[in-house]
Amino acid sequence: MKPGDIVRITHDGKMYEGTLLPSLKGTVIKLANGYNMGFTSEVSVEVVGEEKRLEKFPEIRLEDNPALPQISMIATGGTIASRIDYRTGGVHMLMEPRELLYSTPELSRITHIKNILSPFRIGSESMSFSCYKKIAELAARELNGGSEGVIVTHGTDTLHYTSAALSFMLRNLAKPVCLVGAQRSPDRGSFDGSINLICSAHTALSDIGEVTIVMHAQSDDSCCNVLRGTKARKMHSTRRDAFRAINDVPIASVYPSGLIDYKSAYRKRGEGETLADTAMEEKVAFIKAYPNAQTEIIDFLIDRKYKGILVEASALGHVPTDTVEETLSWVTPVRRACEEGVIVAFATQCLNGRVNPFVYSNARIMHDMGVIYLGDMLPECGYIKLAWVLGHTNEHEEARKMMLTNYAGEIRGRSDFRGF
Amino acid sequence: MKPGDIVRITHDGKMYEGTLLPSLKGTVIKLANGYNMGFTSEVSVEVVGEEKRLEKFPEIRLEDNPALPQISMIATGGTIASRIDYRTGGVHMLMEPRELLYSTPELSRITHIKNILSPFRIGSESMSFSCYKKIAELAARELNGGSEGVIVTHGTDTLHYTSAALSFMLRNLAKPVCLVGAQRSPDRGSFDGSINLICSAHTALSDIGEVTIVMHAQSDDSCCNVLRGTKARKMHSTRRDAFRAINDVPIASVYPSGLIDYKSAYRKRGEGETLADTAMEEKVAFIKAYPNAQTEIIDFLIDRKYKGILVEASALGHVPTDTVEETLSWVTPVRRACEEGVIVAFATQCLNGRVNPFVYSNARIMHDMGVIYLGDMLPECGYIKLAWVLGHTNEHEEARKMMLTNYAGEIRGRSDFRGF
Repeated sequence: MKPGDIVRITHDGKMYEGTLLPSLKGTVIKLANGYNMGFTSEVSVEVVGEEKRLEKFPEIRLEDNPALPQISMIATGGTIASRIDYRTGGVHMLMEPRELLYSTPELSRITHIKNILSPFRIGSESMSFSCYKKIAELAARELNGGSEGVIVTHGTDTLHYTSAALSFMLRNLAKPVCLVGAQRSPDRGSFDGSINLICSAHTALSDIGEVTIVMHAQSDDSCCNVLRGTKARKMHSTRRDAFRAINDVPIASVYPSGLIDYKSAYRKRGEGETLADTAMEEKVAFIKAYPNAQTEIIDFLIDRKYKGILVEASALGHVPTDTVEETLSWVTPVRRACEEGVIVAFATQCLNGRVNPFVYSNARIMHDMGVIYLGDMLPECGYIKLAWVLGHTNEHEEARKMMLTNYAGEIRGRSDFRGF
Repeated sequence: MKPGDIVRITHDGKMYEGTLLPSLKGTVIKLANGYNMGFTSEVSVEVVGEEKRLEKFPEIRLEDNPALPQISMIATGGTIASRIDYRTGGVHMLMEPRELLYSTPELSRITHIKNILSPFRIGSESMSFSCYKKIAELAARELNGGSEGVIVTHGTDTLHYTSAALSFMLRNLAKPVCLVGAQRSPDRGSFDGSINLICSAHTALSDIGEVTIVMHAQSDDSCCNVLRGTKARKMHSTRRDAFRAINDVPIASVYPSGLIDYKSAYRKRGEGETLADTAMEEKVAFIKAYPNAQTEIIDFLIDRKYKGILVEASALGHVPTDTVEETLSWVTPVRRACEEGVIVAFATQCLNGRVNPFVYSNARIMHDMGVIYLGDMLPECGYIKLAWVLGHTNEHEEARKMMLTNYAGEIRGRSDFRGF
C-alpha cells in the first residue's frame, strides 16, 4: 500500500473510496469529489487499484455561472497553490492556476470567476517590490474592468507585507481586494485553503472597500477573519489561525455560509477608478535595534547611499544611547544618517502598542535629530510604507508628512486594546 | 496649584493629604507613606503648603529584620529605578539604589535584603554584553554567598534579552534569579513597580531555581506572572502586562500575599555553587529576512569577519530564494557565509511556533548549506545564545551542537499551544 493507490476504507460501518495521500499521521485519502478525508483512528484499508494519472488532480467539472456577480483571481504561488505529488510526497506548484478551483468547487456557486491571472508563481518568502507592482497593476485593471472584487492567492510567509504594499499602491480603492493563503498543504486533512477561499469570495463580494487578509479565525473551520491589510501579522509559523490583527480588531468574521459579522469600522465599497501608484524605492533597509548591536551596520547603509532605514526599535522607540561602550551608542550614526538625508523611521519591536518620543529623553534626542516616530504602525508595514513614500519623494519634510499620514488605517491616534 | 505643592483632597467624604504629582490625567498625589493615589473624577483640591525638599522622596523608615530569609538586589536602572522631579515633571534615575525600597516598604516584611548592589545605572535599551557579565558575576557571588535568591531591577525594553543572557551565563544555577521592572513611572497612579517587586521577592524565596521575569499578569494589580527567562518577550510598548510567555506557559502566577499558583514544570531549587560562565562573542549580528532585502548586508557582515548571524527568517525558516531578481536571492550570500565559517542560525519572525527545514525545499537547501534551525527558540533568545555559544567555540559542529542543546528551556521538542 503506497501513496497514489486507490483504496477502500471501512470506518464506523461506512465505506469510503479515494486516492491514498502521503500523511505523517493517520490515513488521508482524496475522495472523488476532490475533498481530503482524514482518519486518525485505526481503520480497515483495502487497496483496490492504482491511480492512473498520478500527476493530475481528480478532474472536477466546474460549473460556470455568468449570472453570478463576478470577481477576478490573481494566483501567485504559495501553499494554497501547491499540490502533492502522490508518488514522492513532495509539494509542488500547481501546473495551472485553474487547478486552484478543484479543491473548492463551492466557489462556482458563490461567484463567477471572470479571470484567473497568474503573473508569476513564487513562494511569498521570495516576493520583491516588482511582484507587488504586478499584482497592484492587475488588481486595478480587473477592478476598473468591472470585477466586483479581487482575490489574490499568496504564500503566507510575507502575506502581510504584500497586503501593506497593496494598501498603499491601490489609491482611490473602493472595492475589496482580499489576500488569501493556506497554512497547510492540500495533502493534509487539515487543509485550510478551501475555507479561506470560500470566505475570501464572500468578502470580495461584500462592501468592504479595502485591502484585507482573509484567513482562519480559529484553529477550527468555523469562520475566517477579515483583517485590515496594514494591521495584520503572521504570528505563528504553523497554526491555521496564524494571522492576527495588531493594534486593531478584525473588520469582520466571515462564515462559509456567506454570513458576515462586522466588528469594526471600514471603508465602504464605492465608485471610481482605482489607481495603481506603484513607485517603490529599492534602497531601503529594515533593521533591528538590539543590545550590543555593532553600529557599523548603520554606517554601511549610509555609505551605500540607502535612502531610508526602518528601525524596529525597542518599546516606545528606543535604541542604544547611553551604552557603557561609547562605540555601541546609536547617537552618532543616526545623527550622521539624518544629516546625510537618509530618512530614518522607528516602529516598536513589541508590535503591540505605539512608539512615543516624548516620554524619555533619549527618544526625544532621536526625534529632534529627525527620526520619524511611527506611532502604532507595525514595523513590517512601516518598512513597506517607507519604501513606497521614498518612491514618491526624497524630501525630508514631505517624507515625514507622508509617513505620518493615515492612508489605509496603518496609523491611528488611539489604540484599540481589545486585540491584545 | 503646581506639582510639588502639598494639597488636601476631599473625595467621597474622606480627606487625603499629599504632594501633588505631575499627571496627564486626573489628580495624583504622593501620600506620606510613599504610595501614590490617583483620582480620575472631579475632586476638591486645596493647597496647604509647598514641599520643602522637592528633590527628595518622602523619607520612610525601612524596617530591617535579619531573621527573615535573605536575598540580594542588583539595581541597574530603568523606569522602576526612576523618580519624578516634582518641579519639572521629568523622570530621573534614583540617586541611591536604596530609594527603590521607599516605594515598596512591604519588602522588609517579606525578606531581609542583605545587599543592594548597583554596578551601573542605565536604561535597558543601552545594555551591552559587558552589563550582562557584571550582573551574572554579582548574581553568582551573592547566591554563593548565602542569599536565597537574587532580584535584578531593570528597564523593560530589553529585559528579555538580559533574562536570556543570564539563563545561559549562570551555569549550575539552583536558586531563583528574578528580573523585574516597571512599565509605568513612579509618578503615576498606575505605577506597577511595587507589586512587581513584592511578587519578585516572593519568587526569589520560592523553590523556582531558574532565571525568570516577574511582571504584571493582567492590566490590574491582582498578580504577577513568573516567566521563564528564555521564553518571554515584551509584547506591548506600554501595557503593564506587556510580558508574555511565547511557546511556553508561565511557570507560575504569584500574588502579593505570597501565594504561588504553579502552572508548569520548572527546575527546583537545589544545592551547589553557581558558576558565572560569561564569555560572549561581540561580532554577532541579528538581522531580519524581508521582501526585497538587499543581500549586500550579508556580504558586509562576512567581509567584516562576523562570527555569527542570527536571522529572523519568515515562518518555518525561509529567506528569499526564488526571487524574480537574482540579486535578491539569499542563496549565494548565505552559502558564502557558511563556507567562510560564519555560523548562521534561523529563528521564526512569527515568534510563535517553530522553524522546520524539512517542509519546503528552499529551507532544506539552507539547512544543507549549514544553517542551524533553532526550533521554537525566540529570535532574541537565539541571538543572545549564539553570541554566548561563539564565546565558547568557533567550531561549526560544536557550535551547532550547543545551539541545539537545551540549556535553560529555550528549545523544546514539542510546543505548548496554550500560550497562543
